[in-house]
Amino acid sequence: MKIGWIGTGVMGSAMAGHLLAAGHAVTVFNRTRAKAERLLAAGAHWAESPRAVTESSEITCTMVGFPQDVRAVYFGEDGVLAGWSPGKVLVDFTTSSPSLAQEIAARATALDAPVSGGDVGARNATLSIMVGGAREAFEHVLPLLRLLGKTIVYHGPAGSGQHAKLANQIVIAGTMIGVCEALLYARRAGLDCNQLLESLRPGAAGCWTLDHLAPRILGGDFAPGFYAEHFLKDLGLALEEATRMGWQLPGVELARRLYQRACELGYARNGTQVLYRVLEELAKTSSAH
Amino acid sequence: MKIGWIGTGVMGSAMAGHLLAAGHAVTVFNRTRAKAERLLAAGAHWAESPRAVTESSEITCTMVGFPQDVRAVYFGEDGVLAGWSPGKVLVDFTTSSPSLAQEIAARATALDAPVSGGDVGARNATLSIMVGGAREAFEHVLPLLRLLGKTIVYHGPAGSGQHAKLANQIVIAGTMIGVCEALLYARRAGLDCNQLLESLRPGAAGCWTLDHLAPRILGGDFAPGFYAEHFLKDLGLALEEATRMGWQLPGVELARRLYQRACELGYARNGTQVLYRVLEELAKTSSAH
Repeated sequence: MKIGWIGTGVMGSAMAGHLLAAGHAVTVFNRTRAKAERLLAAGAHWAESPRAVTESSEITCTMVGFPQDVRAVYFGEDGVLAGWSPGKVLVDFTTSSPSLAQEIAARATALDAPVSGGDVGARNATLSIMVGGAREAFEHVLPLLRLLGKTIVYHGPAGSGQHAKLANQIVIAGTMIGVCEALLYARRAGLDCNQLLESLRPGAAGCWTLDHLAPRILGGDFAPGFYAEHFLKDLGLALEEATRMGWQLPGVELARRLYQRACELGYARNGTQVLYRVLEELAKTSSAH
Repeated sequence: MKIGWIGTGVMGSAMAGHLLAAGHAVTVFNRTRAKAERLLAAGAHWAESPRAVTESSEITCTMVGFPQDVRAVYFGEDGVLAGWSPGKVLVDFTTSSPSLAQEIAARATALDAPVSGGDVGARNATLSIMVGGAREAFEHVLPLLRLLGKTIVYHGPAGSGQHAKLANQIVIAGTMIGVCEALLYARRAGLDCNQLLESLRPGAAGCWTLDHLAPRILGGDFAPGFYAEHFLKDLGLALEEATRMGWQLPGVELARRLYQRACELGYARNGTQVLYRVLEELAKTSSAH
């Protein structure tokens, strides 16, 4: 099948690579061409714009950074929508605004399909993919999605995939705050934190964050699995939608303040677990919150 | 072995029952005698005061509600400490103040051993028990603890068990806020929440609260596994200790405000998942937070 791929960062490259490996013809575009070289060497074709990619593809996939990038890639003069015609399907894997997804779906056959599972999930094709849009379009691209992820759930009309992903991030905002505050508390109280994890993991405090990020925090490892600045973006999207729906999310608001502070402290490109450092800083400056 | 048991509520009765069943001689006291009748019928002896229980027991266990109850039971005129003499070991299973645990351990051979796992864990003897105090005392009572729980971890000197339990509650405060806000968001966004759980559970948002309490919330079931008012107490203890250590825990502060509100709304004797209802109320009164 003729597939287009726009956005060849860490996630996008790994995902497009699976489609190539499965024998699909893949045409790529990326703002910085150098980041597409590995795919081009593996047999992908280059196109000069999102429009050109879409014109030459049956299914065009996008995986970019921020909603403003999605807007530029889709609505720009040489954008995806300019290259779309009936029969073609567009799939946006970016975690982006549900409203923007609806806006795109009003103009073309388009799915919003944000993923979770990070770079490891992208490399191992074990992503969780949350899909919104027309069901027939979902069924049409499902064989492709199966090359990229393990848990693939159709959540409903356009925007539903984004809503599901934001709900995912809202849970993580809570577990991250809980785990980081607990570790800070426990360390300050003089506990052996590895022993603490042994007590906590099997019980009601058990969570992915405790299993996977607490050991990194205790080892002083704040390298990114998922960038703090991307998480901040997601929290902003969740609050934007919640506000639109007349809903308060005080936990998400708190998390956003803390990740905003993380970026101010220069931690934007650290992993989300850097929240621990932000809370440490907070203790030093009692006026900061 | 001659065991004393003070506090025969839901948790205490189940736990003392295991000791009786294992063939130990158990002497009980409870503020309300009626709540001890089942244990008495099963062969336990009654004593007229915490002091009398302690005088006739080698190991005296307490499982009461609040730190003020612990203080009364231990330091009262006819309290546990009045009945203690060297060679006897005291074990407090109540989730209580680390500082109070240290105060008791300064007066007697005493362990703080708060549990997690709730009434189900108490009934099935699958509790997680977090122990602080002198190591020799811990090893002395370990065979008894093994009759009550599955995960038994020694955390260090007096107060360490309480600190570990509070760290446990701090994590739960975060996961509860995250899960409740995510469900609210998702419902308002029109998602099918059971499908959402299918997407979220295997990934980075996975947690005990999502597995066990989200389905209850979605089913409108706010019956107590663990009382909201007891959780509020635990959050207050965590903040009290954190303040003493010069530490801010903004997530715990938020959780305490929300559970305070839960109690004001009449939800004190609901389960902790009633936080969902509090957040619903919050959306109706935008000035409340």
